[in-house]
Amino acid sequence: MSKISDLNEKEIIEKYFNRSKNLPDQCRGIGDDCAAYKSDPASAEWQLVTTDALVEGTHFIMDRIDPGDLGYKSIAVNLSDIAAMGGTPTGAYISVALPDELRTGWMDKFSDGIFEVCDRWQIPVLGGDTIVSSHKFYISMTITGQVSDARIRYRKGAEEGDVICVTGPLGDSAAGLRIILEVGSAMDSLDRTVRKRLVQKHYRPPINLDLGNWLGDRDEVKALMDISDGISSDLPEMMKYNSLGANIVREDIPLSDEIKVFEDQTPFSAFLLAEDGGEDYHLLLAVDASGVDALKRDFEAAFGRPFNTIGTFTDQHRDLLIFQEEQRVRKNPASFQQFAG
Amino acid sequence: MSKISDLNEKEIIEKYFNRSKNLPDQCRGIGDDCAAYKSDPASAEWQLVTTDALVEGTHFIMDRIDPGDLGYKSIAVNLSDIAAMGGTPTGAYISVALPDELRTGWMDKFSDGIFEVCDRWQIPVLGGDTIVSSHKFYISMTITGQVSDARIRYRKGAEEGDVICVTGPLGDSAAGLRIILEVGSAMDSLDRTVRKRLVQKHYRPPINLDLGNWLGDRDEVKALMDISDGISSDLPEMMKYNSLGANIVREDIPLSDEIKVFEDQTPFSAFLLAEDGGEDYHLLLAVDASGVDALKRDFEAAFGRPFNTIGTFTDQHRDLLIFQEEQRVRKNPASFQQFAG
Repeated sequence: MSKISDLNEKEIIEKYFNRSKNLPDQCRGIGDDCAAYKSDPASAEWQLVTTDALVEGTHFIMDRIDPGDLGYKSIAVNLSDIAAMGGTPTGAYISVALPDELRTGWMDKFSDGIFEVCDRWQIPVLGGDTIVSSHKFYISMTITGQVSDARIRYRKGAEEGDVICVTGPLGDSAAGLRIILEVGSAMDSLDRTVRKRLVQKHYRPPINLDLGNWLGDRDEVKALMDISDGISSDLPEMMKYNSLGANIVREDIPLSDEIKVFEDQTPFSAFLLAEDGGEDYHLLLAVDASGVDALKRDFEAAFGRPFNTIGTFTDQHRDLLIFQEEQRVRKNPASFQQFAG
Repeated sequence: MSKISDLNEKEIIEKYFNRSKNLPDQCRGIGDDCAAYKSDPASAEWQLVTTDALVEGTHFIMDRIDPGDLGYKSIAVNLSDIAAMGGTPTGAYISVALPDELRTGWMDKFSDGIFEVCDRWQIPVLGGDTIVSSHKFYISMTITGQVSDARIRYRKGAEEGDVICVTGPLGDSAAGLRIILEVGSAMDSLDRTVRKRLVQKHYRPPINLDLGNWLGDRDEVKALMDISDGISSDLPEMMKYNSLGANIVREDIPLSDEIKVFEDQTPFSAFLLAEDGGEDYHLLLAVDASGVDALKRDFEAAFGRPFNTIGTFTDQHRDLLIFQEEQRVRKNPASFQQFAG
């Protein structure tokens, strides 16, 4: 008799939860950043729902993470899913299981982190459930949102020749995690400001709701998702939905000044962190090649930050190739094991 | 420095989660069976969201509960919240943290229990999150729904003189729980069919979506909620929202044949189980006195089951009085400690 640990998350979802038959047209099922449905088929408005669960020990270490950062991040990662559909959040629902020994001072800061985000983005917390138990700290957060027919974007929609773009530098969060976990012996010699900034990127990811709204209004944007697992894993998801391959030009991947210092002062490669490291929570786009220059120009004017083209979708179904100095240096760097939900 | 276990659930919610400022008019906050919001203020349609979390050890015992029953119940209790607003479910989102030693056969049955409900009520499972960890089994389920302006009902809306009604016999689930936990020495002598039926009531509560829809269409129905904690606790919630008191006539509380046998063959009082026991998941209503006879007649014709009037709302603010043989036998039987979320 087999155990649940013999299955990966994707297999668990497929086997036990992706069993709904005959989904109506106005429902989009498991697989995109959010579920999308229309409560009224005649409406131009989609309702969005995303949910994410975090458990102590697996996703964070209680004594190590600042409770304010944990609150901030737990809602920020869900908002990233709403942004990745072009949507606007309408409410948050927070369920927690709390160890009974937890200090109220810790909870004060955790709550402050959540409401720092909710107040800034005007997201009402409308419900949830609270369990006080003797077990681990567990959070499950659900965010609802909405987006119009015109603005909604999916992972599906990319075509051969479309340009692959990202909205921010990659790898910082992964570098930050390595600092937190003290991987690598040379970490102590790292510049203190750089260290602090990279750790902050890991704990307080960007919230790209404005960017998602703006990009959803642009016809050049054909497909959209967020970068939660790293482009090595996330790009194959977009490829899969569109039966495409992708070529990435490594030199075009945006890197922060901080990660370059990190590379200099530690044994890690900035490019590999940028490609394989997750949790950057920038947006990944497929853009029509004829419109990419105009989009880039307008984006940079609107947000005062770089818009980066990093490659092209190809007809090489499911092959992700990474080039450096015009030679192929990697092929399908990640397995396809990440969670599709 | 105080610990989280020094606070009750209501205090935790108030202190850490009920902090949203200036909720827009088209949002109804924490407190009712579901959160309700309008994504478009001009729309006649409310979006509903309810979420409920269960953790092994606190809410169920892994080796004792049938996994199919656990799946069934975990979705049924959320649907009860949708029914209690007059609503119709639009989607389910299921997050689970699974112990890595869990058997796949167990998960098969758990999933079957969930989809038995989802298939019967045509509820698409549209998302969720899955964590395989070494901790306890944890489930967090979110259900979205919708309901029109005309049909939506709240806990608020009752007035002095309104008749208090329930849609099914009370106490069966609490009796079932006592059988499961083997409370009371005489339990072994209990009739086997009765035992089985009461346990079933605890594990597979009724799903009253049809009733909720029907009642929401009736003008006589002024307030509505579900009975999750027992009328001793739930009725004070409805009283609180309306600044009312309530008088209950004990002899009018509906009891099943099974609970009468249970009372005969065990040391337990059927009335006390009916009043204080929770998890019946029938509906509790405030009905306009002038329309209650017509409503009862039509309900019984439509559903072929009794509709019970059990008391009256009074102007005795926050006093719940229970009468038997025309004498007051209980006053405010429950503290006001239950969770308002």
